[in-house]
Amino acid sequence: MAEPLRIGIAGLGTVGSAVVRVVTEKRTELARQCGREIVVTGVSARDTTRNRGLDLSDAAWFADPVDLAANADIDVFVELIGGDEGPARGSVEGALKASRHVVTANKALLAKHGLGLAEFAESRGVLLNYEAAVAGGIPVIKTLREALAGNTVNRVFGILNGTCNYILTRMEAEGLSFEACLKDAQRLGYAEADPTFDIEGHDTAHKLSLLTSLAFGTRIAADEVYLEGISNITQADIRAAAELGYRIKLLGVAQRTESGIEQRVHPTMVPTASVIAQVHGVTNAVAIETDILGELLLSGPGAGGNATASAVIGDIADIAKSRPGFQHGPVFGRPVKELTPYKRATMRSHEGGYFIRLSVHDRVGVFASVAKRMADNQISLESIVQHASDGDDATRKTVVLVTHETTEAAVRKAVDGITSDGHLTDKPQVIRIERAG
Amino acid sequence: MAEPLRIGIAGLGTVGSAVVRVVTEKRTELARQCGREIVVTGVSARDTTRNRGLDLSDAAWFADPVDLAANADIDVFVELIGGDEGPARGSVEGALKASRHVVTANKALLAKHGLGLAEFAESRGVLLNYEAAVAGGIPVIKTLREALAGNTVNRVFGILNGTCNYILTRMEAEGLSFEACLKDAQRLGYAEADPTFDIEGHDTAHKLSLLTSLAFGTRIAADEVYLEGISNITQADIRAAAELGYRIKLLGVAQRTESGIEQRVHPTMVPTASVIAQVHGVTNAVAIETDILGELLLSGPGAGGNATASAVIGDIADIAKSRPGFQHGPVFGRPVKELTPYKRATMRSHEGGYFIRLSVHDRVGVFASVAKRMADNQISLESIVQHASDGDDATRKTVVLVTHETTEAAVRKAVDGITSDGHLTDKPQVIRIERAG
Repeated sequence: MAEPLRIGIAGLGTVGSAVVRVVTEKRTELARQCGREIVVTGVSARDTTRNRGLDLSDAAWFADPVDLAANADIDVFVELIGGDEGPARGSVEGALKASRHVVTANKALLAKHGLGLAEFAESRGVLLNYEAAVAGGIPVIKTLREALAGNTVNRVFGILNGTCNYILTRMEAEGLSFEACLKDAQRLGYAEADPTFDIEGHDTAHKLSLLTSLAFGTRIAADEVYLEGISNITQADIRAAAELGYRIKLLGVAQRTESGIEQRVHPTMVPTASVIAQVHGVTNAVAIETDILGELLLSGPGAGGNATASAVIGDIADIAKSRPGFQHGPVFGRPVKELTPYKRATMRSHEGGYFIRLSVHDRVGVFASVAKRMADNQISLESIVQHASDGDDATRKTVVLVTHETTEAAVRKAVDGITSDGHLTDKPQVIRIERAG
Repeated sequence: MAEPLRIGIAGLGTVGSAVVRVVTEKRTELARQCGREIVVTGVSARDTTRNRGLDLSDAAWFADPVDLAANADIDVFVELIGGDEGPARGSVEGALKASRHVVTANKALLAKHGLGLAEFAESRGVLLNYEAAVAGGIPVIKTLREALAGNTVNRVFGILNGTCNYILTRMEAEGLSFEACLKDAQRLGYAEADPTFDIEGHDTAHKLSLLTSLAFGTRIAADEVYLEGISNITQADIRAAAELGYRIKLLGVAQRTESGIEQRVHPTMVPTASVIAQVHGVTNAVAIETDILGELLLSGPGAGGNATASAVIGDIADIAKSRPGFQHGPVFGRPVKELTPYKRATMRSHEGGYFIRLSVHDRVGVFASVAKRMADNQISLESIVQHASDGDDATRKTVVLVTHETTEAAVRKAVDGITSDGHLTDKPQVIRIERAG
């Protein structure tokens, strides 16, 4: 058997501790699979005194992860610190420059500095693996980077944030408000004290930007993701969606169009009978559509110490099976210098169906006026439903429209027109519909 | 850029032709991803005159695939002939003995001779890749062999045969008989003229035996799969299942139990709201449950020229990215000599819920007698429904029982007892229920 693979782990939180535990407990089995042992020879964590119940007998402690990254006694640097600057960036850069392989779960770092880091890795002939950075334990990076070679991807979309999916699932199942579900998610540790990063879609956007690059061979463009969060989704939306055969999910979608590539994160109506609509709670899912294979769907745990550790260990095992002198596949599927510039498709040119919920004054002619605005913008309707409004206010009604395929520009123009007609009692709600199998 | 990777393809049917077409059309993109070109330098097919519309200008023709396999001008031998003996076996063995990498889609060959072939591959330090052999384009081999390193699998199950899933989907959607749907499947090319191999579960068993070995680190034991096909599933079963919140799927299930490993292929009730229940038509799906990751589900096209070619090309690309001298991961996840013997769990010890549909004479005491047989065998019931029987026969009734978790032995004893009581007008129908998320 070959020499053991020596790994240094920076960050001993939930994920880091789980990685150490599994590598220790499964040492024999991992050696059987990889042809060599995997040994933790170095660790770095802020709190050096806490008893984590881990066997760190083979590991040297480093106060500074940057020192660990450059240490001669490690072959692989595992970054589980988090953050897109500071010690995370410094240590990953240091490790790559010192020709160490790197495994990271850090989507924010990769979304911001991934291309530069990939160039370091490719120039040194080392691996930069990041399966855990997107959709937790689901092997979507491996699938896009390796399994789908030769496929041209047309669309990739998914439920990439467990916090949002947990909230939407509970809102639907229990009829609770967004606020109540968010509070529960925070109590259970599924949401941060400041939940903005998750619920406004930033976390999904980071992950989506990595999938986009892998899927389309384009340079990472995390700042160019169209963003809408879930904080304005109400019970009225969820109930109307259910009535019409839809379920609301926060999706990240990247799609090839004639005018460029769409990257968008927004609440989305998916058919209730689709596979992705059955993805509940903190589970994640990614669908990939290609010219050769067709449509592939992967679903599984998107977060949590063990699920994330599973992806990290898969990445480490891939390195353990490789040997010095092996030339690896490129970090983002193609060499960085061959990634094409990202050409953003404008949201106004987005084509699809739309769900539009309007709260209107209950007076003669409103319905006709709404219908005329749609017709004036060449929007054809799949259904139009008028309801008594929520609550006891007899002076208001709710109108729910579902459009056939149209454009974002047409919908915005129609809704602006309806607003200016003065019939609305509330802000109009517009939710995009996404095809899903 | 490195020297091109030279591949020889034996078999130019639907899959082989699709592989040649994609490798030709995507030559530039594949080179970008793999760091070298992939060139078809040899082919072998029975019909050498047929115009397949393929660019084979770089390829030498071989009458005998065994000659192609040993030819010095190929690095990778791609076997798409089929069959578990004859030229398929001969050429794959020949290629491995000549230290050529092998890619194959041949589940029958691997189910029967996989261990011997893997030993050849491991002793020569070449790759034997077979992603296309299980679940078509779904990257389940890669997931089990690479991504889930360090995970202990507890259960793997899936819809592994598109023909059966197509028939069951149509039976449910359109209320048609098994025979009518089979005939349509044959007309559409989804089923063979002799459909036995698919509908009686043999194809699923071959694929399952490969998943079992990868999942549990055991030696392949395709002959030890418990088998029940779908030919005795009726509309009465499908309707009763729907009423009770279940859908019927032909599943292959491999599961670790206290008494050994279960490998079973049979019609199965899965909850209608589960993800796997939404997998329709010829689509395949595989669920994997592990100690670290939790539950992962992959679904996608399980057959067809392009989907299968996608998996074959992914396998070829993995080889293209490797370099001489690289020591690969073992063929079945662990080196053949470290795979443990397969210890079969008897079906009688299988634990789970059961759906039991009985056609009984409509006379006093039948219901009580059925209930007593269940109680006598310590089977507790989740539900018991009595129906007027199908058709106009007022002298018969249908009783549908759904049990809580019990054992196969208890169910068989109870059903034997009911049968011997003389109340049944027809053969009893017993369908196992499978937990699914």
